[in-house]
Amino acid sequence: MQQYFVEGRAEKLITITDKDTVKHMFSVMRLAEGDEVVLVFEDGIKHLARVVSSSQHQLEMVQELRDDVELPVQVTIASGFPKGDKLDLITQKVTELGAYAIWAFPADWSVVRWDGKKLAKKEEKLTKIALGAAEQSKRNLVPQVSLFEKEEDFIAQLSHFDKIFVAYEETAKAGELSTLARELSTVVTDQKILFIFGPEGGISPKEIETFEQAGGIQVGLGPRILRTETAPFYALSSISYALELTKR
Amino acid sequence: MQQYFVEGRAEKLITITDKDTVKHMFSVMRLAEGDEVVLVFEDGIKHLARVVSSSQHQLEMVQELRDDVELPVQVTIASGFPKGDKLDLITQKVTELGAYAIWAFPADWSVVRWDGKKLAKKEEKLTKIALGAAEQSKRNLVPQVSLFEKEEDFIAQLSHFDKIFVAYEETAKAGELSTLARELSTVVTDQKILFIFGPEGGISPKEIETFEQAGGIQVGLGPRILRTETAPFYALSSISYALELTKR
Repeated sequence: MQQYFVEGRAEKLITITDKDTVKHMFSVMRLAEGDEVVLVFEDGIKHLARVVSSSQHQLEMVQELRDDVELPVQVTIASGFPKGDKLDLITQKVTELGAYAIWAFPADWSVVRWDGKKLAKKEEKLTKIALGAAEQSKRNLVPQVSLFEKEEDFIAQLSHFDKIFVAYEETAKAGELSTLARELSTVVTDQKILFIFGPEGGISPKEIETFEQAGGIQVGLGPRILRTETAPFYALSSISYALELTKR
Repeated sequence: MQQYFVEGRAEKLITITDKDTVKHMFSVMRLAEGDEVVLVFEDGIKHLARVVSSSQHQLEMVQELRDDVELPVQVTIASGFPKGDKLDLITQKVTELGAYAIWAFPADWSVVRWDGKKLAKKEEKLTKIALGAAEQSKRNLVPQVSLFEKEEDFIAQLSHFDKIFVAYEETAKAGELSTLARELSTVVTDQKILFIFGPEGGISPKEIETFEQAGGIQVGLGPRILRTETAPFYALSSISYALELTKR
């Protein structure tokens, strides 16, 4: 069943005001009176809702759904600005794979430089991609997308996390394969995890030092060299496997 | 260091004959006498090699490398033909993530129909993508790409596998989250695993029945709905995490 994210809280009768949502519901999907959809409100709770008036864009709540598909921990993915449209792919896929937030920052070895208007436009595009992917994968929330114009602003956020993982190619090369598994066995529900990925050129030694000082733990993601956009897929899949599929 | 796959076996002195490899080595990378690269032969063993003559495309072996980055099991990914260029993305990413072979077949609910010339052209393109991704991720082998023109030819292959997993959305919805983890705890080194994924429309009940009769086990890949191209990333990442990153 089609799912939509709606601002505010669930009430008996609600009117859809967001233009894109209205367009998708009543022009694209041509919802008519009596049709049912799932609405997810800002509290992350899903409701089965029924169209009362397609011309007034009104729906009534039928029942609250217990469906909660969020990871037991909040995982923020932070990528050093990668080339081209790779952030589009990263945003879509990590949303499907359960990311809580999607951040990107100008890393020392990022080739692209986005700022001002371009950055805002990019962030807007990625936010739309995240919304679409969150609806499609039936998430309870839309990952928040933030592109940092300055790396120092990203670094200032590090203290807000319970655990920081740094995907480090050199670590993988050196055969450091079990740190991630060991660390994941210690996380507890609702912890805030930050997973940092470098751009194509990798993470600079200076950055590694900064992340380590903030408590960052270098982890390898298996023995194969993963592209910058593939590493976050591995990370989130592993976290899901470890925390959702494995009996602990 | 740049890595190339070379046909045949390692000998003291070898001449590169494959046109694309010659072009990349001596035109793109402009390798000169004394430059070193890694060559991987058909046995999967990597060798450090040094250019002896760039005009003759000759290299000498310096030493055998112990580097083996292959998964401990052979995982074949089999996707029902998905729409558009999704197989390109699947091929690149599952090669990075360690797939042994990449198959696709016309599933009951595949929208696209590829046959004859078009299928052969597609297979050729995907084979090149797999080669590029295998070099980039420093694999010991290039995954074999096979596109089946008839689903029955794919089904005829099922008996060659030790274990068959079927990614089944309905299973995930019903909260079946631990089968994959339980089954992965029983696999042993070098086993042949087949992981089947449906196209966008999913796997038909008839197909599910066929796969089950062949020993296929339905597994959920976490509670979120993954797109057809994302599910294989989750599957391979989980297999790597379970078999390479977790102490067993």
